[in-house]
Amino acid sequence: MTYAAQPIDGTSDDRAETSRGRPGGHTWRPMPRSRTYTYVIDQVDEHIVSGALRVGDRLPPEREFATLLGVGRGAVREAIRVLEAYGVVRTDPGPEGGTTLTSMPSEALTQVLRLHIGLANFPMADVIEARAMLERWSARLAARHGSADDLAAIEHELLQMENGRSDREAFNEHDTAFHVAIARASNNRLVADMTTALRDSIRSLVLESFHGHADWPALAEQLCADHRRVFEAIASGDESAAADAVEEHIRSAYATLGWGRA
Amino acid sequence: MTYAAQPIDGTSDDRAETSRGRPGGHTWRPMPRSRTYTYVIDQVDEHIVSGALRVGDRLPPEREFATLLGVGRGAVREAIRVLEAYGVVRTDPGPEGGTTLTSMPSEALTQVLRLHIGLANFPMADVIEARAMLERWSARLAARHGSADDLAAIEHELLQMENGRSDREAFNEHDTAFHVAIARASNNRLVADMTTALRDSIRSLVLESFHGHADWPALAEQLCADHRRVFEAIASGDESAAADAVEEHIRSAYATLGWGRA
Repeated sequence: MTYAAQPIDGTSDDRAETSRGRPGGHTWRPMPRSRTYTYVIDQVDEHIVSGALRVGDRLPPEREFATLLGVGRGAVREAIRVLEAYGVVRTDPGPEGGTTLTSMPSEALTQVLRLHIGLANFPMADVIEARAMLERWSARLAARHGSADDLAAIEHELLQMENGRSDREAFNEHDTAFHVAIARASNNRLVADMTTALRDSIRSLVLESFHGHADWPALAEQLCADHRRVFEAIASGDESAAADAVEEHIRSAYATLGWGRA
Repeated sequence: MTYAAQPIDGTSDDRAETSRGRPGGHTWRPMPRSRTYTYVIDQVDEHIVSGALRVGDRLPPEREFATLLGVGRGAVREAIRVLEAYGVVRTDPGPEGGTTLTSMPSEALTQVLRLHIGLANFPMADVIEARAMLERWSARLAARHGSADDLAAIEHELLQMENGRSDREAFNEHDTAFHVAIARASNNRLVADMTTALRDSIRSLVLESFHGHADWPALAEQLCADHRRVFEAIASGDESAAADAVEEHIRSAYATLGWGRA
C-alpha cells in the first residue's frame, strides 16, 4: 500500500481526499496522523508519572497548550477527549472552565472492558474465571474490613432483590449494585474498581439472559438464596465462607444461564 | 456559573472566545460540547454490545458517518480517537485505509491504569494487594496449563535477569517480561491482560526504586532467587507453591523497596 503526503497535525478534514496511491510512482509515506495526538497524551503521561501534574491541576488552555507543544489545536483537542474518556481530565465549559486533572478510573475501566467483552475479545469463560477470582477477594476483604454502613448498603440491595422479583431489569440493577457494594466494602479501590467494571460490563448480557430464561421465578429464587448466603457470610465476618459462597454463586449462576464451559 | 450559547458540534475552535458570562442577564446553557463525541461512542458501543459490529468490521468513512449520525465531523474524529485509545478501532491511512474494529484491550488497560496509578488515584497498598491477588491466580493457572513454550518463555526472562544484573533498566524490563510471561501462560486472556497492565503500569516507579536503592547487588540477588523459586514451582506444576512463591515475592519486594504498608 502506498500513501500520498498528507497533513500531520490532525486538524485537516480532507485526509481521504488528499490521500491518493500512485501506482508505479514514488510516494511519500507520511507520519501516521494518529501520532500527533498520541504525542500530546504522552507528554501529559510523562508529567503525571513524574509527579509534575496532580489531581486538581489544570492543563494550559487549548491554544496555549498547542503552541507549547508545537502541534495543531485539533491534536490537542483529540488528546483531551481521550484523556477525558480515560477519566483522567474533566473539561468544564464557560469562562471559569478549563481542563482539570481528575480521578474517575472506574468509568474508564468499565467502558474499556464493556467494549472488549462486547467484541468477544475476552472469551466468556475467562470473564467468569476473572469474576470468581476478583469477587472471592472482594468478599474476603469485605468480611474482614466491612463497616456497619458497608453491610447496610449490601443488605439494602439484597432486600430490593428479594422484594422486587417481578421486574427483571430492576432485579439486574440491584444484583449489579449488590456486587458493587461488596467490592466497595473491600476497602481496596483498585480491586473494587476492577470488580465493578467487570460486573457492570456484562450488565446487558445478564439482562438478556434473564429475559431469555425459561423459568424466571425459579432463577430469581436461586439468585436470592445465593445472595443471602453471601451476605450472611460477610456479615458474620467469616472470610473463607464469604469467598466460597460468592464463587459458588458466580459459577452456578453462569451454569444456569448456559454461559459456562461445562 | 453562567454560559453563553456555543456550538455543540465539537468542531469549533473558538469556544473560549464565544463563552461569556453576562452578569444579571439571561443566558442559555448549551449542551456540554463533550456530549456530541460521547453520542458517537455510545452509538458504536450499542452496535458492539448488540453484536451488530464485530472485530474486522469497518466503521463508515468519516464524512458519511457524520451525516448518518447528524453530527459534525470533528465529533466523529474525536470519538474515533477515543475508540482508538481504547484499543477498539485501528485507523489506517491511505486510500485502502479506514477505521476497523480491532482487538487490543491490553494496551488500553495498561494506559488507563498507568495514568491513574501515576495520579495516585489508587493507593500503592491497593496496587500491591491487587498484584498479589492477580499473580497468585496467574501463577496457579500457569502451573496447571503452562505449555513447554510458556515455560521456556518464562525461563528465558529469568536467565536474562540472572546473567545481566549490572543494567538496572534492562533488569526491570526482564522482570516485567517475566511476570507478563507467567500471566500469558495462565491461558486466561482477561486475567493476563489485567496482570500485564498492572505490572506494566508501575514499570517506571520500580525502575526509580531500583536506582534509589542503597544496595543494588543485594536486591538483585534477592529478586533473582525469588523469581527462580516462582519459576521452579510453576515448572513442577505445583499450583499452591507457585501461588505462594509469587505472593511472597511481591510482598517482600515491595517491603524491601519501602512501598509496603508495614
